[in-house]
Amino acid sequence: MQYPEPIAKLIDSYMKLPGIGNKTAIRLAFYTIDMDEKDVANFSASLLAAKRDLHYCSICGNITETDPCTICADKARDRSQLIVVEQPKDVMSLEKMREYHGLYHVLHGVLSPIEGKGPEDINIKSLVQRLQKNDSIKEVIIATNATPEGEATAMYLSRLIKPAGIKVTRLASGLAVGSDIEYADEMTLFKAIEGRQEI
Amino acid sequence: MQYPEPIAKLIDSYMKLPGIGNKTAIRLAFYTIDMDEKDVANFSASLLAAKRDLHYCSICGNITETDPCTICADKARDRSQLIVVEQPKDVMSLEKMREYHGLYHVLHGVLSPIEGKGPEDINIKSLVQRLQKNDSIKEVIIATNATPEGEATAMYLSRLIKPAGIKVTRLASGLAVGSDIEYADEMTLFKAIEGRQEI
Repeated sequence: MQYPEPIAKLIDSYMKLPGIGNKTAIRLAFYTIDMDEKDVANFSASLLAAKRDLHYCSICGNITETDPCTICADKARDRSQLIVVEQPKDVMSLEKMREYHGLYHVLHGVLSPIEGKGPEDINIKSLVQRLQKNDSIKEVIIATNATPEGEATAMYLSRLIKPAGIKVTRLASGLAVGSDIEYADEMTLFKAIEGRQEI
Repeated sequence: MQYPEPIAKLIDSYMKLPGIGNKTAIRLAFYTIDMDEKDVANFSASLLAAKRDLHYCSICGNITETDPCTICADKARDRSQLIVVEQPKDVMSLEKMREYHGLYHVLHGVLSPIEGKGPEDINIKSLVQRLQKNDSIKEVIIATNATPEGEATAMYLSRLIKPAGIKVTRLASGLAVGSDIEYADEMTLFKAIEGRQEI
Protein backbone atom coordinates (compact mmCIF):
# COMPACT_ATOMS: atom_id res chain seq x y z
CA MET A 1 0.00 0.00 0.00
CA GLN A 2 1.22 3.43 -0.99
CA TYR A 3 0.34 6.69 0.70
CA PRO A 4 -2.97 8.09 -0.56
CA GLU A 5 -2.20 10.34 -3.51
CA PRO A 6 -2.97 13.71 -1.84
CA ILE A 7 -0.53 12.97 0.97
CA ALA A 8 2.12 11.55 -1.37
CA LYS A 9 2.03 14.79 -3.37
CA LEU A 10 2.28 16.88 -0.23
CA ILE A 11 5.27 14.83 0.97
CA ASP A 12 6.94 15.45 -2.41
CA SER A 13 6.35 19.17 -2.08
CA TYR A 14 7.77 19.33 1.45
CA MET A 15 10.82 17.37 0.29
CA LYS A 16 11.62 20.11 -2.24
CA LEU A 17 12.39 22.45 0.67
CA PRO A 18 16.01 22.70 1.82
CA GLY A 19 17.01 20.57 4.79
CA ILE A 20 13.80 18.54 4.73
CA GLY A 21 14.30 14.86 4.01
CA ASN A 22 11.86 12.03 3.56
CA LYS A 23 11.12 11.40 7.25
CA THR A 24 10.57 15.07 8.08
CA ALA A 25 8.41 15.53 4.99
CA ILE A 26 6.19 12.62 6.08
CA ARG A 27 5.91 14.08 9.58
CA LEU A 28 5.02 17.53 8.21
CA ALA A 29 2.48 16.12 5.75
CA PHE A 30 0.63 14.17 8.45
CA TYR A 31 0.80 17.19 10.72
CA THR A 32 -0.72 19.32 7.95
CA ILE A 33 -3.75 17.03 7.76
CA ASP A 34 -4.43 17.60 11.45
CA MET A 35 -3.93 21.35 11.15
CA ASP A 36 -6.68 23.91 11.39
CA GLU A 37 -8.43 24.29 8.01
CA LYS A 38 -7.95 28.06 8.06
CA ASP A 39 -4.22 27.75 8.74
CA VAL A 40 -3.75 25.40 5.80
CA ALA A 41 -5.72 27.73 3.51
CA ASN A 42 -3.57 30.66 4.68
CA PHE A 43 -0.39 28.68 4.17
CA SER A 44 -1.46 27.72 0.66
CA ALA A 45 -2.40 31.30 -0.22
CA SER A 46 0.76 32.80 1.27
CA LEU A 47 2.94 30.50 -0.83
CA LEU A 48 1.27 31.74 -3.99
CA ALA A 49 1.25 35.36 -2.83
CA ALA A 50 4.93 35.36 -1.91
CA LYS A 51 5.85 33.99 -5.32
CA ARG A 52 3.46 36.32 -7.15
CA ASP A 53 3.85 39.61 -5.30
CA LEU A 54 7.55 39.70 -4.53
CA HIS A 55 10.19 40.79 -7.00
CA TYR A 56 13.76 41.98 -6.93
CA CYS A 57 14.35 45.71 -6.74
CA SER A 58 15.78 46.84 -10.09
CA ILE A 59 18.22 49.14 -8.25
CA CYS A 60 19.58 47.17 -5.28
CA GLY A 61 18.38 43.59 -5.93
CA ASN A 62 16.57 43.33 -2.59
CA ILE A 63 13.25 41.50 -2.34
CA THR A 64 10.36 43.92 -2.59
CA GLU A 65 6.70 44.35 -3.39
CA THR A 66 7.29 47.70 -5.10
CA ASP A 67 10.00 48.70 -7.55
CA PRO A 68 12.18 50.47 -6.52
CA CYS A 69 12.07 49.00 -3.01
CA THR A 70 11.13 51.08 0.02
CA ILE A 71 14.78 51.55 0.98
CA CYS A 72 15.91 52.75 -2.46
CA ALA A 73 12.85 54.99 -2.71
CA ASP A 74 13.26 56.49 0.77
CA LYS A 75 14.59 60.04 0.30
CA ALA A 76 15.42 60.28 4.00
CA ARG A 77 18.10 57.61 3.83
CA ASP A 78 21.78 58.50 3.73
CA ARG A 79 22.85 58.21 0.10
CA SER A 80 26.56 58.42 0.86
CA GLN A 81 26.81 54.89 2.31
CA LEU A 82 26.07 51.56 0.67
CA ILE A 83 26.25 48.13 2.29
CA VAL A 84 26.89 45.16 0.00
CA VAL A 85 25.35 41.87 1.20
CA GLU A 86 25.03 38.36 -0.19
CA GLN A 87 21.31 37.76 0.26
CA PRO A 88 18.05 39.70 0.78
CA LYS A 89 17.72 38.21 4.27
CA ASP A 90 21.01 39.89 5.20
CA VAL A 91 19.35 43.24 4.46
CA MET A 92 16.56 42.30 6.87
CA SER A 93 19.08 41.33 9.57
CA LEU A 94 20.95 44.63 9.23
CA GLU A 95 17.71 46.63 9.20
CA LYS A 96 16.61 44.99 12.44
CA MET A 97 19.60 46.67 14.09
CA ARG A 98 18.00 50.09 13.33
CA GLU A 99 21.38 51.80 13.40
CA TYR A 100 22.21 52.00 9.71
CA HIS A 101 20.41 54.45 7.50
CA GLY A 102 22.23 54.15 4.19
CA LEU A 103 21.57 52.10 1.06
CA TYR A 104 22.10 48.43 0.19
CA HIS A 105 23.16 46.28 -2.71
CA VAL A 106 22.31 42.56 -2.80
CA LEU A 107 24.75 40.32 -4.71
CA HIS A 108 22.54 37.20 -4.67
CA GLY A 109 25.53 34.98 -4.07
CA VAL A 110 29.30 35.10 -3.69
CA LEU A 111 32.27 34.37 -5.91
CA SER A 112 32.93 30.66 -5.65
CA PRO A 113 35.41 29.02 -8.03
CA ILE A 114 34.40 25.59 -6.65
CA GLU A 115 30.78 26.13 -7.68
CA GLY A 116 31.90 27.83 -10.87
CA LYS A 117 30.47 31.20 -9.82
CA GLY A 118 32.34 34.13 -11.31
CA PRO A 119 31.74 37.91 -11.17
CA GLU A 120 29.22 37.74 -14.02
CA ASP A 121 27.06 35.24 -12.07
CA ILE A 122 26.30 37.57 -9.19
CA ASN A 123 24.92 41.10 -9.04
CA ILE A 124 28.29 42.90 -9.43
CA LYS A 125 27.76 44.58 -12.80
CA SER A 126 24.73 46.51 -11.55
CA LEU A 127 26.74 47.56 -8.47
CA VAL A 128 29.50 49.03 -10.62
CA GLN A 129 26.96 50.82 -12.84
CA ARG A 130 25.23 52.15 -9.75
CA LEU A 131 28.49 53.54 -8.36
CA GLN A 132 29.32 55.13 -11.73
CA LYS A 133 25.92 56.81 -11.98
CA ASN A 134 25.68 58.06 -8.40
CA ASP A 135 28.57 60.15 -7.24
CA SER A 136 26.76 60.58 -3.91
CA ILE A 137 28.11 57.23 -2.62
CA LYS A 138 31.26 57.88 -0.61
CA GLU A 139 31.66 54.59 1.21
CA VAL A 140 30.92 50.99 0.29
CA ILE A 141 30.69 48.70 3.34
CA ILE A 142 31.16 45.08 2.34
CA ALA A 143 29.02 42.81 4.52
CA THR A 144 29.49 39.46 2.85
CA ASN A 145 29.65 36.48 5.24
CA ALA A 146 32.85 35.77 7.17
CA THR A 147 33.42 32.63 5.05
CA PRO A 148 36.32 32.06 2.63
CA GLU A 149 33.99 32.85 -0.29
CA GLY A 150 32.64 35.94 1.45
CA GLU A 151 36.19 37.18 2.14
CA ALA A 152 37.29 36.52 -1.43
CA THR A 153 34.28 38.39 -2.77
CA ALA A 154 35.06 41.29 -0.42
CA MET A 155 38.65 41.46 -1.69
CA TYR A 156 37.50 41.31 -5.30
CA LEU A 157 34.99 44.12 -4.81
CA SER A 158 37.52 46.22 -2.94
CA ARG A 159 39.98 46.06 -5.84
CA LEU A 160 37.20 46.84 -8.28
CA ILE A 161 35.76 49.83 -6.44
CA LYS A 162 38.74 51.50 -4.75
CA PRO A 163 40.28 52.85 -7.99
CA ALA A 164 37.16 54.99 -8.43
CA GLY A 165 38.15 56.86 -5.26
CA ILE A 166 35.37 55.36 -3.15
CA LYS A 167 36.18 54.29 0.41
CA VAL A 168 35.71 50.53 0.81
CA THR A 169 35.32 48.99 4.27
CA ARG A 170 34.60 45.51 5.62
CA LEU A 171 32.59 44.47 8.70
CA ALA A 172 34.82 43.76 11.69
CA SER A 173 35.68 40.17 12.55
CA GLY A 174 36.03 39.18 16.18
CA LEU A 175 34.30 37.76 19.21
CA ALA A 176 30.52 37.66 19.05
CA VAL A 177 28.96 39.74 21.83
CA GLY A 178 28.27 37.49 24.81
CA SER A 179 30.64 34.73 23.67
CA ASP A 180 33.43 33.13 25.72
CA ILE A 181 37.07 33.26 24.66
CA GLU A 182 37.32 29.65 25.82
CA TYR A 183 34.97 28.50 23.09
CA ALA A 184 36.10 30.78 20.26
CA ASP A 185 37.90 29.07 17.37
CA GLU A 186 41.49 30.06 16.54
CA MET A 187 40.65 32.02 13.39
CA THR A 188 38.13 34.15 15.26
CA LEU A 189 40.64 34.82 18.05
CA PHE A 190 43.29 35.70 15.48
CA LYS A 191 40.91 38.13 13.78
CA ALA A 192 39.92 39.59 17.14
CA ILE A 193 43.55 40.25 18.09
CA GLU A 194 44.39 41.57 14.64
CA GLY A 195 41.46 43.98 14.78
CA ARG A 196 42.02 45.03 18.42
CA GLN A 197 41.15 48.60 19.24
CA GLU A 198 42.46 51.05 21.81
CA ILE A 199 40.12 51.71 24.73
CA MET B 1 11.94 47.97 8.35
CA GLN B 2 9.78 44.88 8.53
CA TYR B 3 9.72 42.02 6.06
CA PRO B 4 7.44 42.75 3.09
CA GLU B 5 3.98 41.50 3.99
CA PRO B 6 3.84 38.48 1.63
CA ILE B 7 7.05 37.11 3.08
CA ALA B 8 6.06 37.87 6.67
CA LYS B 9 2.85 35.90 6.16
CA LEU B 10 4.76 33.00 4.64
CA ILE B 11 7.21 32.99 7.56
CA ASP B 12 4.25 32.86 9.95
CA SER B 13 2.79 29.91 8.06
CA TYR B 14 6.07 27.98 8.08
CA MET B 15 6.41 28.63 11.81
CA LYS B 16 3.11 26.85 12.44
CA LEU B 17 4.77 23.58 11.36
CA PRO B 18 6.28 21.40 14.08
CA GLY B 19 10.02 21.73 14.67
CA ILE B 20 10.31 24.86 12.55
CA GLY B 21 11.40 27.93 14.45
CA ASN B 22 11.84 31.53 13.42
CA LYS B 23 15.23 31.16 11.73
CA THR B 24 14.27 28.07 9.74
CA ALA B 25 10.97 29.67 8.73
CA ILE B 26 12.83 32.71 7.38
CA ARG B 27 15.23 30.47 5.47
CA LEU B 28 12.35 28.45 3.99
CA ALA B 29 10.39 31.57 3.05
CA PHE B 30 13.31 33.12 1.18
CA TYR B 31 14.01 29.78 -0.45
CA THR B 32 10.38 29.60 -1.58
CA ILE B 33 10.71 32.90 -3.40
CA ASP B 34 13.60 31.51 -5.45
CA MET B 35 11.76 28.26 -6.17
CA ASP B 36 10.38 27.26 -9.52
CA GLU B 37 6.94 28.82 -10.05
CA LYS B 38 5.40 25.46 -10.91
CA ASP B 39 6.76 23.84 -7.75
CA VAL B 40 5.28 26.57 -5.57
CA ALA B 41 1.91 26.25 -7.32
CA ASN B 42 2.00 22.48 -6.80
CA PHE B 43 2.96 22.90 -3.16
CA SER B 44 0.11 25.34 -2.61
CA ALA B 45 -2.41 23.08 -4.34
CA SER B 46 -1.26 19.92 -2.56
CA LEU B 47 -1.72 21.58 0.83
CA LEU B 48 -5.33 22.35 0.00
CA ALA B 49 -5.91 18.96 -1.60
CA ALA B 50 -4.49 17.03 1.36
CA LYS B 51 -6.74 18.91 3.74
CA ARG B 52 -9.79 18.65 1.47
CA ASP B 53 -9.54 15.11 0.11
CA LEU B 54 -8.29 13.16 3.10
CA HIS B 55 -10.53 11.95 5.89
CA TYR B 56 -10.39 9.38 8.66
CA CYS B 57 -11.80 5.94 7.92
CA SER B 58 -15.00 5.50 9.93
CA ILE B 59 -13.99 1.93 10.76
CA CYS B 60 -10.27 1.98 11.60
CA GLY B 61 -9.45 5.70 11.91
CA ASN B 62 -6.71 5.57 9.26
CA ILE B 63 -6.24 8.43 6.83
CA THR B 64 -8.02 7.76 3.57
CA GLU B 65 -9.53 9.27 0.45
CA THR B 66 -12.41 6.79 0.46
CA ASP B 67 -14.58 5.61 3.36
CA PRO B 68 -14.09 2.84 4.38
CA CYS B 69 -10.37 2.90 3.60
CA THR B 70 -8.78 0.54 1.08
CA ILE B 71 -7.53 -1.77 3.85
CA CYS B 72 -10.90 -2.08 5.62
CA ALA B 73 -12.65 -2.54 2.26
CA ASP B 74 -10.19 -5.17 0.97
CA LYS B 75 -11.95 -8.54 1.17
CA ALA B 76 -8.65 -10.36 0.58
CA ARG B 77 -7.15 -9.22 3.89
CA ASP B 78 -6.99 -11.51 6.88
CA ARG B 79 -9.89 -10.52 9.14
CA SER B 80 -8.67 -12.53 12.12
CA GLN B 81 -5.78 -10.19 13.00
CA LEU B 82 -5.89 -6.53 13.96
CA ILE B 83 -2.90 -4.27 14.69
CA VAL B 84 -3.49 -1.29 16.97
CA VAL B 85 -1.24 1.72 16.25
CA GLU B 86 -0.95 5.25 17.57
CA GLN B 87 -0.92 7.21 14.32
CA PRO B 88 -1.89 6.81 10.63
CA LYS B 89 1.77 7.02 9.64
CA ASP B 90 2.41 3.88 11.70
CA VAL B 91 0.00 2.04 9.39
CA MET B 92 2.05 3.21 6.41
CA SER B 93 5.28 2.03 8.06
CA LEU B 94 3.84 -1.41 8.76
CA GLU B 95 2.37 -1.68 5.26
CA LYS B 96 5.78 -0.95 3.72
CA MET B 97 7.00 -4.20 5.30
CA ARG B 98 4.54 -6.11 3.00
CA GLU B 99 4.42 -9.02 5.45
CA TYR B 100 1.23 -8.28 7.37
CA HIS B 101 -2.12 -8.80 5.70
CA GLY B 102 -4.58 -8.23 8.53
CA LEU B 103 -6.53 -5.18 9.66
CA TYR B 104 -5.60 -2.03 11.61
CA HIS B 105 -7.00 0.30 14.21
CA VAL B 106 -5.59 3.81 14.69
CA LEU B 107 -5.84 5.28 18.19
CA HIS B 108 -4.80 8.84 17.23
CA GLY B 109 -2.77 9.19 20.39
CA VAL B 110 -1.84 7.35 23.57
CA LEU B 111 -2.97 7.43 27.16
CA SER B 112 -0.98 10.17 28.87
CA PRO B 113 -1.93 11.28 32.36
CA ILE B 114 0.63 14.12 32.12
CA GLU B 115 -1.13 15.57 29.08
CA GLY B 116 -4.49 14.73 30.60
CA LYS B 117 -5.29 12.18 27.90
CA GLY B 118 -7.59 9.43 29.12
CA PRO B 119 -9.26 6.48 27.34
CA GLU B 120 -12.11 8.67 26.11
CA ASP B 121 -9.67 11.05 24.34
CA ILE B 122 -8.31 8.43 21.97
CA ASN B 123 -9.96 6.02 19.54
CA ILE B 124 -10.54 3.20 22.09
CA LYS B 125 -14.34 3.17 22.20
CA SER B 126 -14.61 2.44 18.48
CA LEU B 127 -12.04 -0.36 18.89
CA VAL B 128 -14.12 -2.04 21.58
CA GLN B 129 -17.30 -1.70 19.50
CA ARG B 130 -15.47 -3.11 16.52
CA LEU B 131 -14.31 -6.15 18.51
CA GLN B 132 -17.84 -6.68 19.86
CA LYS B 133 -19.37 -6.55 16.39
CA ASN B 134 -16.80 -8.72 14.56
CA ASP B 135 -16.23 -12.11 16.07
CA SER B 136 -13.80 -12.81 13.21
CA ILE B 137 -10.96 -11.03 15.06
CA LYS B 138 -8.93 -13.62 16.96
CA GLU B 139 -5.79 -11.63 17.78
CA VAL B 140 -5.13 -7.99 18.59
CA ILE B 141 -1.46 -7.01 18.09
CA ILE B 142 -0.67 -3.85 20.00
CA ALA B 143 1.90 -1.78 18.11
CA THR B 144 1.99 1.41 20.15
CA ASN B 145 5.44 3.02 20.43
CA ALA B 146 8.02 1.59 22.85
CA THR B 147 7.65 4.68 25.07
CA PRO B 148 6.27 4.74 28.63
CA GLU B 149 2.94 6.06 27.29
CA GLY B 150 2.88 3.47 24.53
CA GLU B 151 3.55 0.68 27.05
CA ALA B 152 0.88 1.96 29.44
CA THR B 153 -1.65 2.13 26.61
CA ALA B 154 -0.74 -1.42 25.59
CA MET B 155 -1.31 -2.66 29.16
CA TYR B 156 -4.62 -0.81 29.38
CA LEU B 157 -5.87 -2.27 26.09
CA SER B 158 -4.72 -5.75 27.03
CA ARG B 159 -6.77 -5.67 30.26
CA LEU B 160 -9.74 -4.32 28.35
CA ILE B 161 -9.70 -6.83 25.48
CA LYS B 162 -8.45 -10.09 27.03
CA PRO B 163 -11.63 -10.79 29.05
CA ALA B 164 -13.51 -11.10 25.74
CA GLY B 165 -11.38 -14.16 24.96
CA ILE B 166 -9.33 -12.41 22.26
CA LYS B 167 -5.59 -13.06 22.16
CA VAL B 168 -3.65 -9.84 22.81
CA THR B 169 0.02 -9.56 21.79
CA ARG B 170 2.62 -6.81 21.81
CA LEU B 171 5.43 -6.10 19.33
CA ALA B 172 8.79 -7.47 20.53
CA SER B 173 11.28 -5.10 22.14
CA GLY B 174 14.98 -5.66 21.53
CA LEU B 175 17.97 -4.71 19.46
CA ALA B 176 17.22 -2.97 16.19
CA VAL B 177 18.49 -4.97 13.22
CA GLY B 178 21.99 -3.79 12.32
CA SER B 179 22.60 -2.11 15.67
CA ASP B 180 25.59 -2.63 17.97
CA ILE B 181 25.21 -3.95 21.51
CA GLU B 182 27.89 -1.43 22.48
CA TYR B 183 25.57 1.47 21.71
CA ALA B 184 22.28 -0.01 22.90
CA ASP B 185 20.80 1.62 26.01
CA GLU B 186 20.26 -0.43 29.16
CA MET B 187 16.47 -0.65 28.85
CA THR B 188 16.74 -2.00 25.30
CA LEU B 189 19.31 -4.58 26.39
CA PHE B 190 17.13 -5.58 29.32
CA LYS B 191 14.14 -6.04 27.00
CA ALA B 192 16.28 -7.97 24.52
CA ILE B 193 17.45 -10.38 27.23
CA GLU B 194 13.97 -10.67 28.71
CA GLY B 195 12.53 -11.52 25.31
CA ARG B 196 15.34 -13.87 24.24
CA GLN B 197 14.34 -16.78 22.04
CA GLU B 198 15.72 -20.26 21.55
CA ILE B 199 17.61 -20.75 18.28
